[in-house]
Amino acid sequence: MAVFNKDQASHDYSHIENAFRPSHADFTYTAKYGSRDHRGGGRSSARETLARVAAGVLAQKFLAQQGIEITAYVSQVGSIHAPADYSQLDLSQVDRNIVRCPHPETAEAMIQLIEETRDKLDTIGGVVSCVVKGVPAGLGEPVFDKLHAELGKAMLSINAVKGFEYGSGFEGVSMYGSQHNDVFFTDAEGNVRTRTNHSGGIQGGISNGQDIYFKVAFKPVATILQPQTTIDQAGQEVTLQGKGRHDPCVLPRAVPIVDAMAALVLADFVLRARANRIA
Amino acid sequence: MAVFNKDQASHDYSHIENAFRPSHADFTYTAKYGSRDHRGGGRSSARETLARVAAGVLAQKFLAQQGIEITAYVSQVGSIHAPADYSQLDLSQVDRNIVRCPHPETAEAMIQLIEETRDKLDTIGGVVSCVVKGVPAGLGEPVFDKLHAELGKAMLSINAVKGFEYGSGFEGVSMYGSQHNDVFFTDAEGNVRTRTNHSGGIQGGISNGQDIYFKVAFKPVATILQPQTTIDQAGQEVTLQGKGRHDPCVLPRAVPIVDAMAALVLADFVLRARANRIA
Amino acid sequence: MAVFNKDQASHDYSHIENAFRPSHADFTYTAKYGSRDHRGGGRSSARETLARVAAGVLAQKFLAQQGIEITAYVSQVGSIHAPADYSQLDLSQVDRNIVRCPHPETAEAMIQLIEETRDKLDTIGGVVSCVVKGVPAGLGEPVFDKLHAELGKAMLSINAVKGFEYGSGFEGVSMYGSQHNDVFFTDAEGNVRTRTNHSGGIQGGISNGQDIYFKVAFKPVATILQPQTTIDQAGQEVTLQGKGRHDPCVLPRAVPIVDAMAALVLADFVLRARANRIA
Amino acid sequence: MAVFNKDQASHDYSHIENAFRPSHADFTYTAKYGSRDHRGGGRSSARETLARVAAGVLAQKFLAQQGIEITAYVSQVGSIHAPADYSQLDLSQVDRNIVRCPHPETAEAMIQLIEETRDKLDTIGGVVSCVVKGVPAGLGEPVFDKLHAELGKAMLSINAVKGFEYGSGFEGVSMYGSQHNDVFFTDAEGNVRTRTNHSGGIQGGISNGQDIYFKVAFKPVATILQPQTTIDQAGQEVTLQGKGRHDPCVLPRAVPIVDAMAALVLADFVLRARANRIA
Repeated sequence: MAVFNKDQASHDYSHIENAFRPSHADFTYTAKYGSRDHRGGGRSSARETLARVAAGVLAQKFLAQQGIEITAYVSQVGSIHAPADYSQLDLSQVDRNIVRCPHPETAEAMIQLIEETRDKLDTIGGVVSCVVKGVPAGLGEPVFDKLHAELGKAMLSINAVKGFEYGSGFEGVSMYGSQHNDVFFTDAEGNVRTRTNHSGGIQGGISNGQDIYFKVAFKPVATILQPQTTIDQAGQEVTLQGKGRHDPCVLPRAVPIVDAMAALVLADFVLRARANRIA
Repeated sequence: MAVFNKDQASHDYSHIENAFRPSHADFTYTAKYGSRDHRGGGRSSARETLARVAAGVLAQKFLAQQGIEITAYVSQVGSIHAPADYSQLDLSQVDRNIVRCPHPETAEAMIQLIEETRDKLDTIGGVVSCVVKGVPAGLGEPVFDKLHAELGKAMLSINAVKGFEYGSGFEGVSMYGSQHNDVFFTDAEGNVRTRTNHSGGIQGGISNGQDIYFKVAFKPVATILQPQTTIDQAGQEVTLQGKGRHDPCVLPRAVPIVDAMAALVLADFVLRARANRIA
Repeated sequence: MAVFNKDQASHDYSHIENAFRPSHADFTYTAKYGSRDHRGGGRSSARETLARVAAGVLAQKFLAQQGIEITAYVSQVGSIHAPADYSQLDLSQVDRNIVRCPHPETAEAMIQLIEETRDKLDTIGGVVSCVVKGVPAGLGEPVFDKLHAELGKAMLSINAVKGFEYGSGFEGVSMYGSQHNDVFFTDAEGNVRTRTNHSGGIQGGISNGQDIYFKVAFKPVATILQPQTTIDQAGQEVTLQGKGRHDPCVLPRAVPIVDAMAALVLADFVLRARANRIA
Repeated sequence: MAVFNKDQASHDYSHIENAFRPSHADFTYTAKYGSRDHRGGGRSSARETLARVAAGVLAQKFLAQQGIEITAYVSQVGSIHAPADYSQLDLSQVDRNIVRCPHPETAEAMIQLIEETRDKLDTIGGVVSCVVKGVPAGLGEPVFDKLHAELGKAMLSINAVKGFEYGSGFEGVSMYGSQHNDVFFTDAEGNVRTRTNHSGGIQGGISNGQDIYFKVAFKPVATILQPQTTIDQAGQEVTLQGKGRHDPCVLPRAVPIVDAMAALVLADFVLRARANRIA
């Protein structure tokens, strides 16, 4: 697969050739490599995720054949968030609105916040949630390559991500064990299931057949269309005026990237599980 | 290195030989491998982290030679948490109390909560925070092996972990870009620094020379000393009575594991950075 | 890097669409994947080595900066071989003739043999030898990733290769230890050197600073322009008439591939050695 | 698995504490690491292969369940070699004599040569051949991880190995394509087979269901019980007198190591093949 970018505008970035933009990778790349490509953020640009999405589409086709379905959606923008329990959402509606939140009222409020943020020449962060249905029990490795550890690494490798949690996540730490434990039962079809799913579908690093769900935190976009103080490569203070094609909020664009990375991780584990199959 | 466990009590686990303990790995291991060792949790036991801590000690000695210092501590137990800003804490005091929280008043409250929880035959979760000082700019790889992605995977591979965030983390998503951006300046010694550190010492996946800090969420221990309903390997409902040597809260014991895993990740990146060094 | 093949002739291969060519990968790919691309040999074609050579050029530029110089050449075609001792050859002359053998008389005989072979509508194999000068002592890892083990794997991954040997190789097995051992001495400049070099510049898997040299055996090209009996995908006997653009001897074309693979392996080890550097 | 060496004699090596033994790893380890353990060769000792053999036994048990059988044997000592065609040998007889050559007359001659060599206080090299029966078609990866490339790397990682060839090997280079090509046919049971097997059971890096066979060249043992000139760590010439427990020929001891490494490689490929299985 090869993608040719016909919509580049490299000269839009000449004002940052010698300046380190705040909270971008300009300084760290220079510190690491001694040089950087300032045009469009160079290699640290999220354009790089195009390759992930392209590969992820193939992985999703493969997973669909195994009955595994992945749905990511925007669950929070700024402080506005959708209902926490995804079973209250119609996940088939993710792409029905521009902000990719399947809860119409919340989507409205998110869009309004993003527009206000844009008008203030500012940016805002948010959270992408993801639900994976149809994963059989047994995916994941027992020690370092736990299923959620690989999912976490994959999500944290996406530009602008600051956090990852699955199942009960950070909120679960305040719960008592007697509340948090997921009681097993055998359903009418003879399948092993759990009455609650604080485990997020993964126990001991291995899928248990229940839904896998997790959240990914994205910081506000670092490029803002306001003047900012920073330094140039000589260490001198300069003032930068953000310009170019920049989003006030990347969350809607992050949804297919989360889908793709989840698919790539799960496809790998399906293949590893086959290798270990006893029969 | 070899460690011989002389304090094993394998027969303590005979009551779970055929039962799937709630929120343990008993069911998932059986689903994956067709068999499991029920004694002491077998391979899914956190005893496995002993090897990590032993190796981490070597990594910490190596990092100390590079001027890199790692300090993990318990920042939250249940809903009780230490001040969020670690600069208000004396990190040299971590081991001064049994709960490994360097804020004495908070430590008192945590200990009281843990004792109450134990008396209720229950368990409680918490958060370990970690601060890494002295990391030079330039550690980390640009795409998949971002420094925080590898730290996140390492932390998520520790038993009972449900979440990882670094820098501003999940709270940062509600901030505006104009608040969140870390402005660069040159200090009196000519070093590039940032006035705030919402980035958590990592930008574009590569360290920027500021402190690295992150949080790791631990769920409440799954073994509780109360009767619980579950099923056995035949799918029949049974009642389990927890017994054996179990902690009401693992957080204090998790601190050296977080230290060790952080050290192993950072030592690897120091070696990788050397390989890439231009001169 | 991307290379666009403008000289393809896919229809030239329609006669093998359903037949398994003898000693090609047609059958094994079908057995493994359930399908294969018959046009031009598909993925098993040596066209794939183009990417290796392109990457190898970059590695050779890097190695040249470290003072490391790699020279591969054709040392044998059929039973005709150049003098065994490479110090009797002028390695700068490799590209002076079409067969890439730096010994003019031998080159003449090789060319004549290849032409005769072509006239007989047959093919012939040969050996590529390779000499690497300027490798510092210390490259290679002690157990599985020995320097010669990685070189060997790299060479054996090239299409049509049947064998690899370094230093004294298969002939060395008939020697006594007292003949084979390379005696150390200190030369006039104070460098540690060996009086002979049966070790081929590698001892215990790690370079010792002497020349590295090795040989790579290539089988005769499997496509011959004569009728051959084989079977089709249904298992029925068929007669194949070879046609298309095929060399009677691939040895001269293999030289830059050997150069490239040697460079890639050595560049990796230079980077690994830097990571381990004590100072 | 842990093995405790109760037959060590570390003081036997004090005479080499400061000297670089010819054709050993003493110098290269010192050059790479700045230090070495001189006792028993330290980490470069072939004692290390004990772990390979222990793991290989498990791999062989697994492979036996798949119908795969590996037989290594000594095919050459010095210039004395068994008949080249392994189908003339009774491979079940490998362990019937001390030299592990399944051809009794050749074994006699080998033993005599080794005894003469020992009496001359010298050492001699040789070749281990290996035959693998029952490998299904489809093992191996198409580009870098070709089946024979991984087998080659594994063999070359064994101490004292100088060369690897499979199928027709180095002799095949002198053959014409019309002689070398293995013609396919369908046997009475409907299986795809080849009339000859110059390919050594591997085509395009992937097994074709015929026997896999390969040869591994071992140099003469470097420690000889004669005085040898060398240098010490200060670069000064010294004379070393070999002593200790040393074999005049390692070939018989190398047989189980070759078995083990072949088993480990094949077990890995069986697992990889399962992962890729379409159905």
